[in-house]
Amino acid sequence: MLSPAQLAGLIDHTLLKPEATADDILRLCREAHENAFCSVCVNPVWVAHAAAELHGTPVKVCSVAGFPLGATLTAVKADETRRVIELGAQEVDMVLNLGALKSGDRELVRADIAAVANVCRQQQVLCKVILETCLLTHDEKIIACQLCVETGAHFVKTSTGFSTGGATAEDIRLMAAQVKAAGLGVKASGGIRTLADARAMLDAGATRLGVSAGVKILTEARGAAR
Amino acid sequence: MLSPAQLAGLIDHTLLKPEATADDILRLCREAHENAFCSVCVNPVWVAHAAAELHGTPVKVCSVAGFPLGATLTAVKADETRRVIELGAQEVDMVLNLGALKSGDRELVRADIAAVANVCRQQQVLCKVILETCLLTHDEKIIACQLCVETGAHFVKTSTGFSTGGATAEDIRLMAAQVKAAGLGVKASGGIRTLADARAMLDAGATRLGVSAGVKILTEARGAAR
Repeated sequence: MLSPAQLAGLIDHTLLKPEATADDILRLCREAHENAFCSVCVNPVWVAHAAAELHGTPVKVCSVAGFPLGATLTAVKADETRRVIELGAQEVDMVLNLGALKSGDRELVRADIAAVANVCRQQQVLCKVILETCLLTHDEKIIACQLCVETGAHFVKTSTGFSTGGATAEDIRLMAAQVKAAGLGVKASGGIRTLADARAMLDAGATRLGVSAGVKILTEARGAAR
Repeated sequence: MLSPAQLAGLIDHTLLKPEATADDILRLCREAHENAFCSVCVNPVWVAHAAAELHGTPVKVCSVAGFPLGATLTAVKADETRRVIELGAQEVDMVLNLGALKSGDRELVRADIAAVANVCRQQQVLCKVILETCLLTHDEKIIACQLCVETGAHFVKTSTGFSTGGATAEDIRLMAAQVKAAGLGVKASGGIRTLADARAMLDAGATRLGVSAGVKILTEARGAAR
């Protein structure tokens, strides 16, 4: 069983709602620092604010590319990645090209992931690839994981939190089976609201958690550890 | 009362679901041509496909920038706009920076819209600005409309279809009152599923309709006109 501090170190404290304000982002950063979360995960418009607020702390800034539809051009995702890194992002969660995957265009999906992963690797930034598992078939999930391994991504991630469903233990097990041997991490995100949810994901093989309820989950964990 | 043909000419035939496939996009284009819709509205990844399919027809290709959260960097939205235009888009629907608007940073919202509108105007492409009205207060809707007028956007548009609500007649009336005198159009989008919905929006002042149910609505209109 992880200690509360170990659990905190696996949490990307996440606020991606488009209506989030500057004050909301500052609160997120302060909570992340107080609770020693791994990172804050914010939209590109807030990366500079978050990086300034978290300067000198161990909390990283994570941002997103092609989020949440994954349906923009590869060049745009790569440019967005470059720019958020310049502004202070140390991790980038991209959404793969779901339409290309569903159209059987594996090469386009591969090139899209590779373009973002290459920018990240050049800058020593972690690249996570969001599959949006709720929209994929079993076979599409496996293909997506294989492409993430082949292109040098650092993590596969289940969900954006903006589609029809979030992380399930079954998907985490499937993804972990595909990528763990190659050294990739697995980020569970979407619908993780309680300590029980978080533990179920970790038990299934998740190595990172994307949650907006991080403070609540950690409070629960501290209570359970007493 | 508009004729069915006039109604068709106001419709942006829309498919922005991230899981849409190449076949879905071809079907959308064929329906748009058969029904003489104004445009197809597709994600950036599909602009080149749609432009090739619709080449030589009067149907335009509309795409999106910063969609659907509006929470990416101004430079990324402008670059995305430039690229979709290069690929064949003749209209671009951008999402404004909702977080900046809600944080009271009017100048950032203005600069963000202006950057995209300027790219569009240089290329003689229509720029529509999505307010995501369901997330805005009355005053924020008015400020957003004023900024769209000041920055030279061509249209204000209600909704992305990916948030908590769509177009309402009340919002269309408010937006039309703010922008019509300056010559801007008003696009109603989100939740318009029937001929009655479409008529309610047009009666309230909409000059364009973004709908995925265009074929159904037009079939209804032809029935009603008999």
